[in-house]
Amino acid sequence: MPRLTHPRLADVPLDLALHALADPNRLGMVARLNATRELSCAGAAPCETIPKSTLSNHLKLLRAAGLIETAQSGREMINTLRRAEFDQRFPGLLDAVLANAPGSPGG
Amino acid sequence: MPRLTHPRLADVPLDLALHALADPNRLGMVARLNATRELSCAGAAPCETIPKSTLSNHLKLLRAAGLIETAQSGREMINTLRRAEFDQRFPGLLDAVLANAPGSPGG
Repeated sequence: MPRLTHPRLADVPLDLALHALADPNRLGMVARLNATRELSCAGAAPCETIPKSTLSNHLKLLRAAGLIETAQSGREMINTLRRAEFDQRFPGLLDAVLANAPGSPGG
Repeated sequence: MPRLTHPRLADVPLDLALHALADPNRLGMVARLNATRELSCAGAAPCETIPKSTLSNHLKLLRAAGLIETAQSGREMINTLRRAEFDQRFPGLLDAVLANAPGSPGG
């Protein structure tokens, strides 16, 4: 597998970040990664029946928005949230979105 | 012109709200409406050269997301931000997005 690329947060525009979060499946993945330190690609999937290509596209979009980092760990690809970097680039944004997400106490 | 419909904020899902804001033109219109009490459709346009149909689509999406209200005033259609209602539905979200918008002090 080719090495995956991750953008510098400074190069991520707000509209791309919002677009990545503007999907219930992707937002659910971000919420799960926020609650868990790291997840495999299958573990991050919004449901078991999601096609692999769809899951792969979601993860790609989350990477492009600077929201997640994907790294190889043995045979698995492991995803982590780039929380500190994202919060530094867009202060308060992820907190506000997660607080309003369906299933959250405020959502 | 047919009377325009506006959703109850309770019926607006988060992903639709984020999608409406995930576009530099629409976000710019929301920021201008946030700084001004009301704007005609032409006045709300992100630039003078934007095609009327594109502007109309942007306004339609902002209406569908519960972000703006459009009402007839004489010959003009006047847009206002549904700020209080939107803030009640999605606490802190619009503040966080506007604070990170390009051109804002924090963006």
